[in-house]
Amino acid sequence: MNNPLYPKALKNLVDSLRILPGVGQKTALRMALYLLERNPSGAQKLSAAIGSAMADIHKCTQCRNLTDKEICLVCSDPTRDESLLCVVENPADVFALSQSVEYKGLYFVLMGNLSPLDGVGPEDVGLDLLESRLAKGIIKELILATNPTVEGEATAFYIDEIAKPYNVRVTRIAHGVPMGGELEYLDSNTLSHAFRARQQF
Amino acid sequence: MNNPLYPKALKNLVDSLRILPGVGQKTALRMALYLLERNPSGAQKLSAAIGSAMADIHKCTQCRNLTDKEICLVCSDPTRDESLLCVVENPADVFALSQSVEYKGLYFVLMGNLSPLDGVGPEDVGLDLLESRLAKGIIKELILATNPTVEGEATAFYIDEIAKPYNVRVTRIAHGVPMGGELEYLDSNTLSHAFRARQQF
Ligand SMILES: [Zn+2]
Ligand SMILES: [Zn+2]
Repeated sequence: MNNPLYPKALKNLVDSLRILPGVGQKTALRMALYLLERNPSGAQKLSAAIGSAMADIHKCTQCRNLTDKEICLVCSDPTRDESLLCVVENPADVFALSQSVEYKGLYFVLMGNLSPLDGVGPEDVGLDLLESRLAKGIIKELILATNPTVEGEATAFYIDEIAKPYNVRVTRIAHGVPMGGELEYLDSNTLSHAFRARQQF
Repeated sequence: MNNPLYPKALKNLVDSLRILPGVGQKTALRMALYLLERNPSGAQKLSAAIGSAMADIHKCTQCRNLTDKEICLVCSDPTRDESLLCVVENPADVFALSQSVEYKGLYFVLMGNLSPLDGVGPEDVGLDLLESRLAKGIIKELILATNPTVEGEATAFYIDEIAKPYNVRVTRIAHGVPMGGELEYLDSNTLSHAFRARQQF
C-alpha cells in the first residue's frame, strides 16, 4: 500500500482488512472499495458490529466458549447431561458439532492446542480449569474432539494423562475425519459418523 | 446464523462480515472468531479504520476517483498532461494502471458501467460530467479503458458516441486483456502491453 494515489484513510482501511484470515492485498483493496462505493451503510454496520462484539463477547467461565453471559447457554442449560464433556479446539467446532450430532452433554473449548514451541502451555488452553472440573467427580466421559492433526493429537494425549487419576472414561472421536483435516470444514455426515464411532482412548 | 449457541453480538458480526465480496458464512465465522480470539487490537483498528474511511473519503469533483481532498492528487498534479484522459471503471483500475503504465495524463472513474436493466444510467456513471469536460476542448485523446466485458464494451461504445461531436481522438486499450477478464487482476506486463497497443476506437 505505498501507492501515493491512495488517500491515507483508504490505506489504513486496506491494511486493517488484511489482518483478516485469507485476505491479501488485492482482496483487501476490493473489499475496501466495495464498502466505500457500494455499501456505505453496510460498512457502518460492520464497524459497529466489531465494536459491539469486542465489548460484549468473552469466554464462558466454565467452558471457555465465547458468550455474552458469565456462563454460556450450553453450560447453563439444565436439560444437558453434565456427566459428558466434549473437548474441542475452537468455538467453531462447538457450532459444527451442535449442528451435526445428537449430543446432549457439555463442551470444553481449548481455544487452540498445546504448542510448547510457541509458548502455549497447559494453562493457556485452560487445562487447569479442565482438571478442576474432573476433580469434582461429576464427569463420567471425556470426549476428546480435537482435530486429528499433530497438535490436536498431542493435546489429546496430554489431556488423557491429566484424566488418568480421575474416575473418567476418556474417548476420542473416530478417525473418519481425514488426517490433517479440520473439524469445522467437514460435512455433517462425516462428522456425525466420526462422533458416533468414538472409541476408548 | 440461526444457531442458538451463537451470542447475538457474534451473529451480528458474522452477518456484517458477510456483506464483504467473496465472504460466505463459514469464512465470516472464521474471520469473526479470529478477531475475537486472536486479534482484538486488530479488530478495534479495523472498526476505527472503517469509520475514518467513511468519514474522510469521497469522490473527486473532477474525476470521481476516491480522495480525501476536494480535488484528488492526480487531478491537481500540474506535471500531468491534461490533454489525455483515461476512462476506467473503478479506483482499483487507476491504481493498477498507475503501477503498470508510463502514463502522465489524467483519469476519469465511472464507478461502474452503464446498466440500464439495473437502473444505472449515464449520469450515474458521471457521463454528464465527462461530456462537460470534453466540451471545454482541452482533451485531445480519450482512452477508453473499461473492462473487455459485455458491460464494459457497451459503455465504451456509448462514450464513443458522446465524444463524436467534439474534436477528440477516442482510443480503446488493446485486447491483450483476456475477454471476460478484469483489469485490476491482470499482471503488470499484460496490462502495460495492452495499454501501449491501444488503437483508434
Ligand atoms: Zn460455557
Ligand atoms: Zn480527481
